[in-house]
Amino acid sequence: MRTIDWVDGAIELIDQTRLPDACVTLRVHTVDELIGAIRRLAVRGAPALGVAGALGVALARGDREAVARLRAARPTAVNLAWGVDRAAARIEEGPEAVLETALQVRDDDIAACHAMGERGADLLQGDLLQGDRLRIMTVCNTGGLACVERGTALGVAQTLHERGRLAEVLALETRPLLQGARLTAWELGRMGAPHRLVTDGAGPYLLARGGVDAVLIGADRIAANGDTANKIGSYALALGAARAGVPFIVVAPESTIDAATPSGEHIEIEDRGADEIVAFRGARVAPEGTDAINPAFDVTPHDLITAIVTEARVIRP
Amino acid sequence: MRTIDWVDGAIELIDQTRLPDACVTLRVHTVDELIGAIRRLAVRGAPALGVAGALGVALARGDREAVARLRAARPTAVNLAWGVDRAAARIEEGPEAVLETALQVRDDDIAACHAMGERGADLLQGDLLQGDRLRIMTVCNTGGLACVERGTALGVAQTLHERGRLAEVLALETRPLLQGARLTAWELGRMGAPHRLVTDGAGPYLLARGGVDAVLIGADRIAANGDTANKIGSYALALGAARAGVPFIVVAPESTIDAATPSGEHIEIEDRGADEIVAFRGARVAPEGTDAINPAFDVTPHDLITAIVTEARVIRP
Repeated sequence: MRTIDWVDGAIELIDQTRLPDACVTLRVHTVDELIGAIRRLAVRGAPALGVAGALGVALARGDREAVARLRAARPTAVNLAWGVDRAAARIEEGPEAVLETALQVRDDDIAACHAMGERGADLLQGDLLQGDRLRIMTVCNTGGLACVERGTALGVAQTLHERGRLAEVLALETRPLLQGARLTAWELGRMGAPHRLVTDGAGPYLLARGGVDAVLIGADRIAANGDTANKIGSYALALGAARAGVPFIVVAPESTIDAATPSGEHIEIEDRGADEIVAFRGARVAPEGTDAINPAFDVTPHDLITAIVTEARVIRP
Repeated sequence: MRTIDWVDGAIELIDQTRLPDACVTLRVHTVDELIGAIRRLAVRGAPALGVAGALGVALARGDREAVARLRAARPTAVNLAWGVDRAAARIEEGPEAVLETALQVRDDDIAACHAMGERGADLLQGDLLQGDRLRIMTVCNTGGLACVERGTALGVAQTLHERGRLAEVLALETRPLLQGARLTAWELGRMGAPHRLVTDGAGPYLLARGGVDAVLIGADRIAANGDTANKIGSYALALGAARAGVPFIVVAPESTIDAATPSGEHIEIEDRGADEIVAFRGARVAPEGTDAINPAFDVTPHDLITAIVTEARVIRP
């Protein structure tokens, strides 16, 4: 099953807002439908957004204004703009060329995630750690649902599991939208991989208490100096890992590295508004009129990152 | 309005599980009813648990076995056992003596919270900070709902507000039971104090981004060396505050200092089970069968604490 694909002239994607209750595939025929799906997080995860961007250009049929709107649908993950730009570069050559590139972006993601899983597992088993089976902590969802077939950080856990070297994944639930509870727990259950959920606030404390061998996260944008924007809560985990002496590893494709952004302070952080925090599934949690700050991402400074694993290399910032 | 009180031969307490939707007062006539209310967090907060413990001994009418069960209803907050022990020391003298002591525990809390508010506000305005109006970050609920009339950490914010020196409180929502969203936002709204909610994972990042002058937390148990057990997420905030150079202040009565516990590693941390995390208001969030680790508290090492403010003094660990 692919998270996102091109089928019979349209995009098909798993509607991630419905998981884990139902696994529903949406067919997306227009750029505006795709922008809607991206904004409400029916499709999310930096690599999947890259593929969505590229396939979306195929839906645009040469409409440059639609392509520009798609490129700006969400600001933080560099992959969306990168995927759009790769496919849009061939608009002059006609729709077949655009689609050919978009499908290449999709296939490159599949290959890159496979390579990241191998490289990350090798790094953890070889250089960094000794233990027989490893205990991994992660945040948000960086599995197949964030990409096309296999994941980035969770892809490394999957490879470890396939090698018989995964003891357990501790998955942060990832407020406000609970991608950890809804998506990561669902994927790990399907893999048959041992896992438990923890609240986001508990992550750093559980690192201090011992019992975690490595923290693995994905990335939405990696600045030239290694500063990494990722799901809100990543920075707190990085602080906890540094204090506990636990390796903190970023796993992301080369396309997430943004050489044009010198450091983290230049990365735009999306604020998704108060509604996701003050209410839950339509029911108010906080008193009427309560406001909230809702940054969807944070920035982990490169000095807190042990290694960045891509499909091509291991970077030690 | 008092969070907990003795009225006409029974305990009256605000049922905090119903807030912010409804403000309902419960009358509690027996120790077992009180233990139930404590376990389901109808009454919570270390100082309020101290008062509940003392008043609960008055309900026990000399039943030593009931007193022992009450003392062990929740393990982490030292105040519960402390309040029980203070009142139980007078059981031999008869019920009037027990009630006299229990009411003294209540009145002492009211006076202590007032003093903490003044001392904490003086510390922030005088020694630590310059700004005209202060921006405070806090976690969980440490307001009047955690005590009898006024709060500990949130009591300091209340005093700043009364002095016209509070710019804003950023309240962590505090998963899994959302005491920040449900209780702290409700109290701040009633005070007319500016406030916004943030997810727990966002706290350390917002400290890094600037815009917070001090972090104020309460405490459930302070070890002899200053290590402080408090609501899960406090340790992550302490790491964030240390990295950002923001003062991190614990506000708690002297009764929360446990000289018999040498350091944080000796503090028992209550795990409240998976149900609070995998479901929300009875609706499952995570896939069926998902397990969770749910430590209700964490321990902040004393080296991350700028100051501990009690009703009697300012301690710099």
